[in-house]
Formats: sequence, structure tokens, C-alpha cells
Amino acid sequence: MPSMGGGAHEWPYLATNVRESELVDVNDFVALASEARISVLDRSVTYGDAIYTTLRVCGGEPLLLDRHLARLQRDADRLMFGIEVARLSLVTRIKRLLAINSVLEGYVRAEITRGTRLDLVTLKAFDPSSIITTSSATFSSSPIAARTCSDPRDAFRDAKTTNRVAAMFSLRSALFSGADEAIFVSDSEIIEGTCHNIFELRSGALVTPDVTDRGLAGVIRQVLLEEADAKLASVSWTTEGPLYATNCLSGVVEVTELNGGPLRRDPVCLSRMRKILSLHGYPTN
Amino acid sequence: MPSMGGGAHEWPYLATNVRESELVDVNDFVALASEARISVLDRSVTYGDAIYTTLRVCGGEPLLLDRHLARLQRDADRLMFGIEVARLSLVTRIKRLLAINSVLEGYVRAEITRGTRLDLVTLKAFDPSSIITTSSATFSSSPIAARTCSDPRDAFRDAKTTNRVAAMFSLRSALFSGADEAIFVSDSEIIEGTCHNIFELRSGALVTPDVTDRGLAGVIRQVLLEEADAKLASVSWTTEGPLYATNCLSGVVEVTELNGGPLRRDPVCLSRMRKILSLHGYPTN
Repeated sequence: MPSMGGGAHEWPYLATNVRESELVDVNDFVALASEARISVLDRSVTYGDAIYTTLRVCGGEPLLLDRHLARLQRDADRLMFGIEVARLSLVTRIKRLLAINSVLEGYVRAEITRGTRLDLVTLKAFDPSSIITTSSATFSSSPIAARTCSDPRDAFRDAKTTNRVAAMFSLRSALFSGADEAIFVSDSEIIEGTCHNIFELRSGALVTPDVTDRGLAGVIRQVLLEEADAKLASVSWTTEGPLYATNCLSGVVEVTELNGGPLRRDPVCLSRMRKILSLHGYPTN
Repeated sequence: MPSMGGGAHEWPYLATNVRESELVDVNDFVALASEARISVLDRSVTYGDAIYTTLRVCGGEPLLLDRHLARLQRDADRLMFGIEVARLSLVTRIKRLLAINSVLEGYVRAEITRGTRLDLVTLKAFDPSSIITTSSATFSSSPIAARTCSDPRDAFRDAKTTNRVAAMFSLRSALFSGADEAIFVSDSEIIEGTCHNIFELRSGALVTPDVTDRGLAGVIRQVLLEEADAKLASVSWTTEGPLYATNCLSGVVEVTELNGGPLRRDPVCLSRMRKILSLHGYPTN
């Protein structure tokens, strides 16, 4: 599986991989990760009520930052936070934290909570908290094996909320069966992985499933839709490939096996996808 | 709607109704609610990864405490926390906090998080946090109006996780349409409300839907199954009633309307249910 070189079975996409000696930013205050705290009454703590995004850092630069913040705004709107993400100065704060922590290669995670107060009709975030963490990390571009599972997630699977419990259990099952990633399917069609969007190379063209109302439109997915001339089309879970898995940390990796069966591979297509991502700062290896 | 006499559209079952001047217990340390904090790296903050229970306090006594802790243990097992709830001394800590905050009538909420560290295969809670809050409150026993909605929740809806986002939106829609509660249905059958189990009086006997894998087995529901000779049976959303809504704060309340249509009522049955609950310390009004 993709690894940061950490302990066994650690997935790189975890806020909990932040070292306790590193600094984090909570509401524009910078503090040691080991000491940074949030109110136990915050609705992220009590009701899993927060949104977030995770993005890669290369050469000290957070990649595709504007697009990540645009999706954060979309999710804030979808969940009726009633806030303007731009007012949180996340661009400045992210760049400051990367500089303070001297992160050249790694990732940033930004979360916005609904805060402690709630009016059940407006759902407005009266006192939202914003939490930024960074971590130095290297990402493997090795191919992965995947298995499918039926989708156990709730109706907000198209928003990047902090509730990852169902996805965590699906990923665990995949790891347990010797695969690296679980891919959610519905009516025999692929939706997405627990932390990847999926592309298929079909008749020389890239296609990816429509995720409206059923999956997360990842930022890398959007870039490839726009710049790799990829199209929306359903992908059967009986596909023979080639399949590619994308996210903002690993960029694009090949899927070599699906449910134990080998998939066709096309290194030329992989190379073309990586070349597009390299225009946004991703390494080409 | 049931009210604690707080602001407009506040639902009583909210940790966020705890007053900032009250004391809370985090990991056996007692602190002011306004100052009590948890690590921003805790998985409750980052990934909605925690379980909880809420129970009523009458005359200073937490009602049905053993049953609540048994369910907390069951949910800890279901989510593979790998912890013994009894070791957290919740009974002692809850009683201490109620005494410190001088809560005679109100509620207690106890949450257990998975902590900051994760091994994706074992899922063990290496450093769980436990958070106890109490609040003085009065609960209305007034009847409520309900509307149905299709179930937007994930595969862990049968565990009391802290992710309440989908339920919150369903309840909001019900409030918006002038009702007091939303009732989840699947295949035209009632499952449960956003914070109530549902009983129907049918041919003189109480029935309640089987919630296995699709809803939360509330503690009051279990008491009524055992002591009111209630049976498991499907309840159609076209029922004409009588319907009753149960939870550990309000006890049992009548549902007077479903989707705008009036339901039959049976005060004798209501009185019988309340009498059973009174044996566990609930007021009979």
C-alpha cells in the first residue's frame, strides 16, 4: 500500500500522522501539536460535524490550493455552515505553517468545524473553528491492488465531512484481504475508492464515474476531466482495466489487481496523466 | 417540540446545551466547560470517530445507567475500540459530576473517542478519551407531530456514533415543515426517529420495528420490549396509530400527527407505558 514509511498499516491520509513536536494552527493561533486543543463542546467532537480537505506539498508549495479551498466552500454551503471560507485566511495560514514546520515534501490538512452552538433550522456555524495541520511525508507511486465493496456510507458521501468511520471499516476489510484499497460499488458500477477517484482507460480514452450525490469529486479528478480530456461514463466492477486511482496526495497510481484478478496496464497513459499533474507541481515519477 | 426552555429550535439532545459555567469531566479530570479541551488530533475531531450515550437524570439519579453503559460497551465492540468500558469508572465519574454541578433534573452525556492513534487493521483505541457532560433541564411530555423521510444514514446507524450530520438534516427538514420529529422509513416501513424509537399500539398490543442493522436499539425501547410485553413487528408509514416515540430523555411521548394526518390516540396505553418507566425513576406526567 502507499506508505509514508510509518508504522504497519498506517494510511498516509491521516491527521493523526502529524508528529507531536510539529506546530499546528487552530483559529489562526500556532501551537505545538501535542498541546493544541479544541473545546469538548465543539460539534466536531460531539457530532462528527465538520468538513476538511487534504492537499499535497511539493518543494514547499501546497498544490492546487485554490481548487481545494473552492471545494471547501462548496461543502460549507452544502452543509449550511453559512461561512465564507475566504475570510478564514487559509492561504496565508497554510503557507505560514508550512514555513514554520519546514515542510518541503508532505501534506496539509485543513478542517472547518461547525463550532459549539446550533440553531436547528438555520444550521449556521456561529463560532466555527478552523484547524490546519501539516506533515512531512513521502508518497509512493507504486501500483496498488484493490477490492470492491458495497457502499456503506451516508447521504453526505458527496461532501468531505470528517465522518470516516464507514470508509475506515471498508478500507480495513480490503487490507485484511491483502489489497491496498477498497472501491465502493453500487449496482455493479464503480463509484470511487475510500480515498481515491477511479479512472478507466477504455478504447484509448479516460473515463471516470459520475459521482453526483454518491461520491466525492476529488480535485485531481477535476483536473484530469478538464486537462486529460477524460469523460464521464459508468465503469463496471468487472472491468479488465487499465484502472487508475487518483487523489491529491499520491497524484495517480495504477491499479494492478481488482478483487484478485489482474488488470491490463498502460504505462503510456499513466505517464500522460502524470505529465498533466506535473504542470501543477506533482513529481513525474 | 420538546424543549428545555432554551432558544428557538434548540433540540434538548445536544451536548452543546451545556452551559459554559458548568463543569465537565474529560479523562477523569474535572474542568469548566468553557475551558475543557481535547487534542485537535483526536479522531473525534478529525474523523467523526467516537461513540456516546445520553441519559436522563431525575432527583439527582442517572436513570438506567447500567443499560446505557452496556450499550456503550456493545458499540465499542462493534467499532473495534478494544476497550473495557467498566475500566473508565464512568459510574463514579457521572455521579461525581452530577453532584458537583448540582443537577437534580436534567441529563448526562458520556462519549468515548478512538483517540489520536490508529492502526488500520486492529482499529484499537490506543489512547481513548472519555468526555462526560451534564446539564440541568426539564423535559416536556407534550405530544409531537412527525413526518417521514427516507433514511440517509450510513451502515453504522445501528451504533451510536457521534456522526449526526445526516440525522440533523432530516430533523431540520421536519422542523421546517412544521413537524417536531423526522421518522426514517425504508420500503414504506418505519425504522425509528432521529432521536426516538417508535412503538405502535395495534389490536391492543405494543409493537416496535426490528432495528437490527438499520436503527438504534434505545435503552427505553429495550425496557418496554421486556416489561410492556411489546413485540417486534413492522410498522407501515401509513399507520393510523396510535404511535409513541421513546427515548431516554423524554421517556415516552405520543405522536399526534404523521405527515400531517392525525393519528388515533390511546391515553390508557400511554399511561401504562409511563407507569413502567416510573419504576425506573421516570416521572409519570
